[in-house]
Amino acid sequence: MTAPARPAGTVDVKHMKWWGWGVEGVGFRHEDKPAFAPFVEKAIGLDLRQAASTARPDFADLKVPDSRAPEKFVDALGEIVGDGNVVVDDMARVVHTYGKSLRDLVRVRAGEIARTPDVVVYPADEAEVRAVVDTAVDLDAVIIPFGGGSNIAGSLEPHADEDRVVVSLDLGRLRRVLDIDTDSGTARIQAGALGPDLEAQLNEAGWTLGHFPDSFTHSTLGGWVATRSSGMQSDKYGDIADIVRGLRVVRPGGVLVIRPVPSASTGPSVREMVVGSEGRLGVITEVTAQVHRLPEKRDIYAYFFKNLDHGLAAMREIAESDAAPSVTRISDANETGFSLATGKEAKGIAKAAQAGLMAFLKKRGWNLDEMCLSFIGFEGGAAHAKRQKAIVDRIVRRHHGLGVGKGPGALYDQKKFDTPYIRDFLLDRGAAGDVSETAAPWSKLRQVHAEAYRAAHDAFGRIGRRGWIMSHLSHSYHSGACLYFTFAFVFGDDPLGEYDTVKRAVQQAFIDAGGTLSHHHGVGLEHARWLEQDISPQGVTVLSGLLAAADPGGNFNPRKIVV
Amino acid sequence: MTAPARPAGTVDVKHMKWWGWGVEGVGFRHEDKPAFAPFVEKAIGLDLRQAASTARPDFADLKVPDSRAPEKFVDALGEIVGDGNVVVDDMARVVHTYGKSLRDLVRVRAGEIARTPDVVVYPADEAEVRAVVDTAVDLDAVIIPFGGGSNIAGSLEPHADEDRVVVSLDLGRLRRVLDIDTDSGTARIQAGALGPDLEAQLNEAGWTLGHFPDSFTHSTLGGWVATRSSGMQSDKYGDIADIVRGLRVVRPGGVLVIRPVPSASTGPSVREMVVGSEGRLGVITEVTAQVHRLPEKRDIYAYFFKNLDHGLAAMREIAESDAAPSVTRISDANETGFSLATGKEAKGIAKAAQAGLMAFLKKRGWNLDEMCLSFIGFEGGAAHAKRQKAIVDRIVRRHHGLGVGKGPGALYDQKKFDTPYIRDFLLDRGAAGDVSETAAPWSKLRQVHAEAYRAAHDAFGRIGRRGWIMSHLSHSYHSGACLYFTFAFVFGDDPLGEYDTVKRAVQQAFIDAGGTLSHHHGVGLEHARWLEQDISPQGVTVLSGLLAAADPGGNFNPRKIVV
Repeated sequence: MTAPARPAGTVDVKHMKWWGWGVEGVGFRHEDKPAFAPFVEKAIGLDLRQAASTARPDFADLKVPDSRAPEKFVDALGEIVGDGNVVVDDMARVVHTYGKSLRDLVRVRAGEIARTPDVVVYPADEAEVRAVVDTAVDLDAVIIPFGGGSNIAGSLEPHADEDRVVVSLDLGRLRRVLDIDTDSGTARIQAGALGPDLEAQLNEAGWTLGHFPDSFTHSTLGGWVATRSSGMQSDKYGDIADIVRGLRVVRPGGVLVIRPVPSASTGPSVREMVVGSEGRLGVITEVTAQVHRLPEKRDIYAYFFKNLDHGLAAMREIAESDAAPSVTRISDANETGFSLATGKEAKGIAKAAQAGLMAFLKKRGWNLDEMCLSFIGFEGGAAHAKRQKAIVDRIVRRHHGLGVGKGPGALYDQKKFDTPYIRDFLLDRGAAGDVSETAAPWSKLRQVHAEAYRAAHDAFGRIGRRGWIMSHLSHSYHSGACLYFTFAFVFGDDPLGEYDTVKRAVQQAFIDAGGTLSHHHGVGLEHARWLEQDISPQGVTVLSGLLAAADPGGNFNPRKIVV
Repeated sequence: MTAPARPAGTVDVKHMKWWGWGVEGVGFRHEDKPAFAPFVEKAIGLDLRQAASTARPDFADLKVPDSRAPEKFVDALGEIVGDGNVVVDDMARVVHTYGKSLRDLVRVRAGEIARTPDVVVYPADEAEVRAVVDTAVDLDAVIIPFGGGSNIAGSLEPHADEDRVVVSLDLGRLRRVLDIDTDSGTARIQAGALGPDLEAQLNEAGWTLGHFPDSFTHSTLGGWVATRSSGMQSDKYGDIADIVRGLRVVRPGGVLVIRPVPSASTGPSVREMVVGSEGRLGVITEVTAQVHRLPEKRDIYAYFFKNLDHGLAAMREIAESDAAPSVTRISDANETGFSLATGKEAKGIAKAAQAGLMAFLKKRGWNLDEMCLSFIGFEGGAAHAKRQKAIVDRIVRRHHGLGVGKGPGALYDQKKFDTPYIRDFLLDRGAAGDVSETAAPWSKLRQVHAEAYRAAHDAFGRIGRRGWIMSHLSHSYHSGACLYFTFAFVFGDDPLGEYDTVKRAVQQAFIDAGGTLSHHHGVGLEHARWLEQDISPQGVTVLSGLLAAADPGGNFNPRKIVV
């Protein structure tokens, strides 16, 4: 009954490597960062000089379940998209099974693959997506839309007990900027465009989307919309929910079309139902998004604060002020230590300057272990950027902060998409490094921070591991901000059990202290358990009702977000 | 079976007069505006010197249907809220039957009252709202939440064929600002607070919501949320959808609670489902809204543009620039003529200055019949406001506009809530004056404007009346703006038939030219016929599914927005 494997070679869509983040041949290395190994040893007791990197996992070792796609079905899909764009081989199905969460990588490296999609299909355009959707729904198959595969909330995997045929609908061939409305500052862009692809097309015409999440290099516009993504310059450009105006979503029997109006009073917002829908309302094929002319000026400045309290107070005051920075970010003391430890060795004048700065701060009475590094970005016309910086500088001074220029910011800007490689580097050496993020009102951020730390350390105690946690504030709003936590520890005997203990403790602390379950990573399977505590049982009732009514057959990425 | 009328006097909630806008004793007068009567005569052929004002309608002439509320039910409600806060008398039921649309006023003045609510209940707090809701749902009654009663989209009226008992749940007693979180810039406010009430409470503590819709004096926070309202300073403060962060919504069996986080990735946004829900998802009892410290500076400047093309181009460029004004508004030539005609007679120096200005513009080659008046507001610190104005002034100059100072803006600011009284003034004299508004991308505004004009004039021709239409742009966004149209004509034999012909023609023109059915008035019954054309049939399917699933018994304001 099941189809023979088809050659994958003809599909012109690149994927990340199956066992980790990014493409082969790119990885984090610490040899040129002399402070890194001592830092890691102190933080989690991992001696990088001793720790052997695990061998690169061998795909041949995996036991990949057979495809359950009937040959007739695969043939029907091939009729639609062309035979070369329907793939059932093991590699393609494994690549489309998981996202890139720590849990995903631990499982795929361990060969834990209970269920893969049965077939991966690469339509060329919306018409083909429609035909694929109709064909799949006719068969009562499950459709899981796939963008860049960077998801870390468990939004992509088929359920182990899914008896129906599972189709991974890869949008990778829908990657063109179709049109720029230069009067309206909007662009029609196909949903499968990866960050670098769409920025290149926009930049060429003098425009930018301004959306740069950490996953930028390997995530797509459609994926950003489906998970409520937020980029590092959200202070200026908004979250993806603000950026997306028009939408096209393929559903059984037709296309849901939201026209790109700037604002509308048309009842409960269907646009805001599609945003964050993680595939459950259909397949997003096209987005009309706000775009901006490339700014004349775009600088990120670094500041040091004496401690987190001073820094948070400054960020809050900046958000309340007349200033409009593009980036506001401050690392807590732990993350500041980490950042300084991941720098390349300073030499000559740079080394002397760094030493001089630290000596100066010490002399001012700073405890360098409490010091916090902040990045604040300014974009726009030169005069505008200068004025915003002047307002910010005044606020920083009031909170005893110290500006240290553009050097560290430029470095941060270059390196900002590399963090996931460090996670894989640790994983190669038997250690967990993972993230949890939330948003909360300004008045609750300090408590969210303290409670997340306490919860993580309690959890480290319970699993008997030496653990590390660090955090930064990013994405400021009028009424609050995002707090982003990274935690790490060396695995014991039960990697995923230990991971769950820590991750769940941190997430629960967010909710208990007044934060949300996620600011920009989505719900998927990973965060669904906190949804009722976050948006209330009645909120879940309303949301479940929407999803059940919109997809009565449960064909679209079923049981994600809410069961 | 039906209950005896109860005395209404004990209820401490003020309502607008039953036959028109606002409170008794306030109205528009033209005697001190010498240019007004000639303007009206030219525009719609109504001679105000001749036109007799209709007599004030007499409530005694109305044939009000009896209340169908069973006495036991009224008693049960009385147990919850206290007897004085349950009202079944004719006046209260008529006041709660309609909003204040032209259609509503024509009908109520003509005694066309097919169905009223059967009982009006005024709970004191959320606990009482919950008990009322549970009691009403137990009886399978219909619940229609009522705020200020200013709605003009037909969101309030019971259906003529509604066989169930209809409860008007008036939130008027829930009007307190409960708490201001000064760190987060948010305030917990009860949903029934009228604009002036909540601003007074906030102002006293040094804060403002910054939300000033035209209906401000007679509309409530809960009503704004339920209809996706937008205020005149939305450029700075955002639409109500941006302003509201947290929500409490009473539903059968529990309260839907959205926590006031600045942004969240929790799937399709339930917050954005409640916003615009017009009572269909439950009863909004409390809102946590963004509030801002009262600005140091708050000025509105007036500018003249040679014609609408120049003016619109300037507004677009301002939206794209680094400037952040609080108000951007430009009237087209017709509305500019109207504005100048509603001014009090200038005397002495003011008269000479006005005449001098017009002579100057003529000499510069302006055709005064094409001239457009614009208001642009600046708020914030003094230095900030000054800088924003400098950026705007440069743009205005590039588009040959002329600044004329703060005088007209201050006048506009004082008079901005009085427009509905002019509508009633015309209605008293047998003429229709009504509004339709939309939003569209910048690139489509000129076409929306032209098509709406063409459609209105076609419609005036079809009904055989001399008609008038005028428009302004307000509420600028990155990608577009709102266009707000006012039209007028003297009624012939079939007032509502004629009104429908014009109103529907204008609305259809919006949709056909790429605008939305409403930027900030809501859907109700009035705009529901365009919903499928606006958000697509699939969008309506998704929306209908949400509402049906959330309220399977159809107890909450049924058949509004979508059937």
